Amino acid sequence: MTKLEEEIHNNGVNLSTQRSFGTKLKSGLKETFFPDDPFRQIMEEEKPSRRLIKGVQYFVPIFEWLPNYNLRLFFSDLIAGLTIASLAIPQGISYAKLANLPPLVGLYSSFVPPLVYAVFGSSRHMAVGTIAAASLLIGDTISTVADHEKEPALYLHLIFTTTFVTGVFQACLGFFRLGILVDFFSHSTITGFMGGTAVILILQQLKGILGLKHFSTKTNVVSVIEAIFTNRHEIRWETTLLGIIFLIFLQYTRHLRVKKPKLFWVSAIAPMTTVVLGGIFTYLVKGQKHGIQIVGHLDKGLNPWSIQYLNFDSRYLPAVLRAGLITGVLSLAEGIAIGRSFSVTDNTPHDGNKEMIAFGLMNLFGSFTSCYLTSGPFSKTAVNYNAGCKSAMTNVVQAVLMALTLQFLAPLFGNTPLVALSAIIVSAMLGLINYEEAIYLFKVDKFDFVICMSAFLGVAFISMDMGLMISVGLGLIRGLIYLARPASCKLGKLSDSGIYRDVEQYSNASRVPGVLALQIGSPVYFSNSTYIKERILRYVKSEQSSSGDDIEHVILDFTGVTSIDTTGIEGLLETNKVLERKGIQMSLVNPRLEVMEKLIVSKFVDKIGKEKFYLNLDDAVMASQYSLRTSKTNNNEETL
Amino acid sequence: MTKLEEEIHNNGVNLSTQRSFGTKLKSGLKETFFPDDPFRQIMEEEKPSRRLIKGVQYFVPIFEWLPNYNLRLFFSDLIAGLTIASLAIPQGISYAKLANLPPLVGLYSSFVPPLVYAVFGSSRHMAVGTIAAASLLIGDTISTVADHEKEPALYLHLIFTTTFVTGVFQACLGFFRLGILVDFFSHSTITGFMGGTAVILILQQLKGILGLKHFSTKTNVVSVIEAIFTNRHEIRWETTLLGIIFLIFLQYTRHLRVKKPKLFWVSAIAPMTTVVLGGIFTYLVKGQKHGIQIVGHLDKGLNPWSIQYLNFDSRYLPAVLRAGLITGVLSLAEGIAIGRSFSVTDNTPHDGNKEMIAFGLMNLFGSFTSCYLTSGPFSKTAVNYNAGCKSAMTNVVQAVLMALTLQFLAPLFGNTPLVALSAIIVSAMLGLINYEEAIYLFKVDKFDFVICMSAFLGVAFISMDMGLMISVGLGLIRGLIYLARPASCKLGKLSDSGIYRDVEQYSNASRVPGVLALQIGSPVYFSNSTYIKERILRYVKSEQSSSGDDIEHVILDFTGVTSIDTTGIEGLLETNKVLERKGIQMSLVNPRLEVMEKLIVSKFVDKIGKEKFYLNLDDAVMASQYSLRTSKTNNNEETL
Repeated sequence: MTKLEEEIHNNGVNLSTQRSFGTKLKSGLKETFFPDDPFRQIMEEEKPSRRLIKGVQYFVPIFEWLPNYNLRLFFSDLIAGLTIASLAIPQGISYAKLANLPPLVGLYSSFVPPLVYAVFGSSRHMAVGTIAAASLLIGDTISTVADHEKEPALYLHLIFTTTFVTGVFQACLGFFRLGILVDFFSHSTITGFMGGTAVILILQQLKGILGLKHFSTKTNVVSVIEAIFTNRHEIRWETTLLGIIFLIFLQYTRHLRVKKPKLFWVSAIAPMTTVVLGGIFTYLVKGQKHGIQIVGHLDKGLNPWSIQYLNFDSRYLPAVLRAGLITGVLSLAEGIAIGRSFSVTDNTPHDGNKEMIAFGLMNLFGSFTSCYLTSGPFSKTAVNYNAGCKSAMTNVVQAVLMALTLQFLAPLFGNTPLVALSAIIVSAMLGLINYEEAIYLFKVDKFDFVICMSAFLGVAFISMDMGLMISVGLGLIRGLIYLARPASCKLGKLSDSGIYRDVEQYSNASRVPGVLALQIGSPVYFSNSTYIKERILRYVKSEQSSSGDDIEHVILDFTGVTSIDTTGIEGLLETNKVLERKGIQMSLVNPRLEVMEKLIVSKFVDKIGKEKFYLNLDDAVMASQYSLRTSKTNNNEETL
Repeated sequence: MTKLEEEIHNNGVNLSTQRSFGTKLKSGLKETFFPDDPFRQIMEEEKPSRRLIKGVQYFVPIFEWLPNYNLRLFFSDLIAGLTIASLAIPQGISYAKLANLPPLVGLYSSFVPPLVYAVFGSSRHMAVGTIAAASLLIGDTISTVADHEKEPALYLHLIFTTTFVTGVFQACLGFFRLGILVDFFSHSTITGFMGGTAVILILQQLKGILGLKHFSTKTNVVSVIEAIFTNRHEIRWETTLLGIIFLIFLQYTRHLRVKKPKLFWVSAIAPMTTVVLGGIFTYLVKGQKHGIQIVGHLDKGLNPWSIQYLNFDSRYLPAVLRAGLITGVLSLAEGIAIGRSFSVTDNTPHDGNKEMIAFGLMNLFGSFTSCYLTSGPFSKTAVNYNAGCKSAMTNVVQAVLMALTLQFLAPLFGNTPLVALSAIIVSAMLGLINYEEAIYLFKVDKFDFVICMSAFLGVAFISMDMGLMISVGLGLIRGLIYLARPASCKLGKLSDSGIYRDVEQYSNASRVPGVLALQIGSPVYFSNSTYIKERILRYVKSEQSSSGDDIEHVILDFTGVTSIDTTGIEGLLETNKVLERKGIQMSLVNPRLEVMEKLIVSKFVDKIGKEKFYLNLDDAVMASQYSLRTSKTNNNEETL
């Protein structure tokens, strides 16, 4: 080996680093479960007492913001709280009806959970309340084991139990820092799911708007349209007219908000206005005689205890678990995405794992106090943000107002016409069909579009949970296909530098005769070791047939490979064996820390030779060219 | 913008490439399903007639090798065929007993399937036959719906149906080029599974070796040991002694093969010798009177038709499908891995998708002719290889010899003592416990070790299919964790060059003041967009607190990122927003083709600015330093 060769071969590749197993495990666990380094600020404190305080503040965020809270902030929060409370009453009643629950349960759910969230929640914008999609899904699932008309008590108790399950599940996810699960709900899935839910909810509300008495219990588009068609003789024009008027009013106020953002409060109080005006109107014209159905009698009083009703009977448990887990993950995915997007907008804190614990606790306490599933609904949170909320205090304001309503005003809302509630739901749902996002997905990423549409169509035509599962499953399949077929590319030298780039992307990148430089995709795993081998051999074949000359060196750029496993190493050894038999040398450029460690312990480095490792692609190419020249010179000498 | 800045900003990043959707789809499908470019050699032919011939040769490999076949090759194949046939008889009888099948079915299975494989198979070394693990698994699953003692006919018909299902499934996988599914069985899973199966098979054979009459129908370790303990009064010393003698003989011949590879044929015919000697001995000493059980009466004659017995009754279908699909994937994964490893050793062809079709067809035809599941067992294939096989003709030789045996010699084998079969299985299984591989996995990759041990312990202590599923599931979880947490690292400049490397790996890599260069892991997907954002912000925080000075530039090296989706793009935009608010500029280095295309259509490039893209990390760092200096100069001027 000449001096030059030796110098090139020892070009500084670190062939010795070896971290201990403990170090690697610790770093792996940290990246997987604590990527946001949550305890950093606690650990930075030196005094134990300060650490304790920081620790309590970390786990119970109210202690962090309350000490600095003042009247000025409270005034802002009061306005925002009033606004969301006025939204909470009609939404509470309507969404409870979606879950086939007594309207009061919907109102109860805007009292206890917001208080719990105010203590444990990390977001400043979240407005706690019930959500339409989960209400429908929970009602759908529990209806399979208990009839809400024939066994209303059992049905109600199972809903509380489902909420309990959701709460425990969410709190555990947060406690064990399994936010990683929620990461697998992509934005595309949520967009499609919300759109699909909106469509079926709107169709369902046609029952209320048309004033029908009989309807389908199924939620898919076909059944609902069929139900309307069969029951068309029940349509009442009075109700329909009223519904259309309400809807036009609500849509107009939304339109106003888009045009003049300062008038957001008009659209925020519009649902409440609809309820009040609708109630007064129905009362005055004695609407019930004209076929206008109303909510009916509502008791006064705060949430009664429900902890004694939790029912874990094995006959119902499968349905309860199913509903609890699916709605639990779903409402987390939605709630966390919403909270995060607002916190990014104005750079306020937001912690996914804390949010899970807060959501979990509010559903847990909710299930003890006659509430059902709550989360951070998009519409309410957006109104809260626009109303200028400053802290979780808005939820306290909301809760207090709801308590006052329950204690003194509840019976008044009994006069609300159902058609007003239907109009409120339809109007809210129209805003959730985000077709612009779907077009964007179609333009940017077809696979994301398919994931989105599968959720949309699955929810609309099969069922809500199937739609959700198909879409999440497609997302996973996309990930698995990535793992099975990581992209590699052929590198060429850019004329004026030692830089190598994809020849498909940069047409001015030129190949080096006799040398084939490839960039390998990450990771090199069991799922792709055969593929990578075949891909490399295919590059060699096509390069030889297109350029006409013999390839003598294959250089694999490992810069992008961040992980490797034993099957992957085996595959590389096989590749090397096959290439060697063709008289081709294989060398590796810049293996990363984790990869290098495994290549060393697996004796891969010893098997293919230390001199085959280069720190830099240009060095590797230069060394190959040097050996090409040397071998040619030798051949010429031999010929002579 | 100065001239220098402009030059740096337009440093040749290709911001315009945009492939059409068709191109991208075609390339995606090709990489996913046709990575080995199978039709290349067909398409290269210009004449249509040559193309047709090449096409037929591609789909029916026998037309490829038979025209060049000669007597010399046949002589080699004859020797190898004789050797594997001598192995096929005892293995056929023993493994059929594992599946609770009549011994003849095991012999039938070494007649038709090898013929089919000889026509369609692509490997030169594969020796077709039944396999122990799948035999046990198939018997286990079908026993849950039909008792092999009470309803032997139904049981047998369901086994044929299972084989039919396996055949159809395997052929479809091959036809639709879904070899990608088999890729998800890692080497670690197969090692652990084979080891676990070997352990339970050895324990099960204690029944035969100890001469017990009653035994457990369950296969896990605990049940088997319990069964031996409860039935210990049935132990017959005569049988046990005979078993130990056989076992010592078999193990000695194996030992011999390891020591002197040329004597491989001794170990290859050892099982046959055991059967013959055992049969003669039992006949001479009238062994049955001494408690030595024998196989019993065997009919003469070739495979009868069984197509009329296929039973798709819905009562049994779930078990049949379950057994068919699991053993189908398992035997493919094992068979393909074995074929591939031998083809790499001596550089002969091997095509995973063709193998699937061949395996599928041989099981399909097998199910019509009283055979059960066959594949390429490791031991038989290794013997075939060592015996110097040259082509799939060895399988024809094996089949012919088996036909002769069935037609004329079958009744003789009825005298074989069961203990001899048990000794053969135990001896074969001892070779499959690859503890050295497990130690290797432990040293190189702890996660692979866990995957391997979960298969081993799962099979040994729960059940074969659960063990397999847990292990494959862990492999998938490993992949998903990779997708959720792709590794990134902080880059530093190596003192003497424009090269940047991981500062953890290269201690001589030094940071550039005010600039933070990060290498981002691949892919940037929905599953990790939040993580990547948090990780970047954490790098910024820790860099600021450790170095003390302000970071003004974050440079993301995208060289290794081969794929991105819309949620990932959204995450990058959020990151940029948060960094901007901290007064930090974010720039991107060398986005790859597919990534760049999406960044352009999603308007990401427009939003963060074209000047933030660099072709090369060093350029980006230089530009940042330039702007740092400029801003400092400006500040100084302002201060002045």
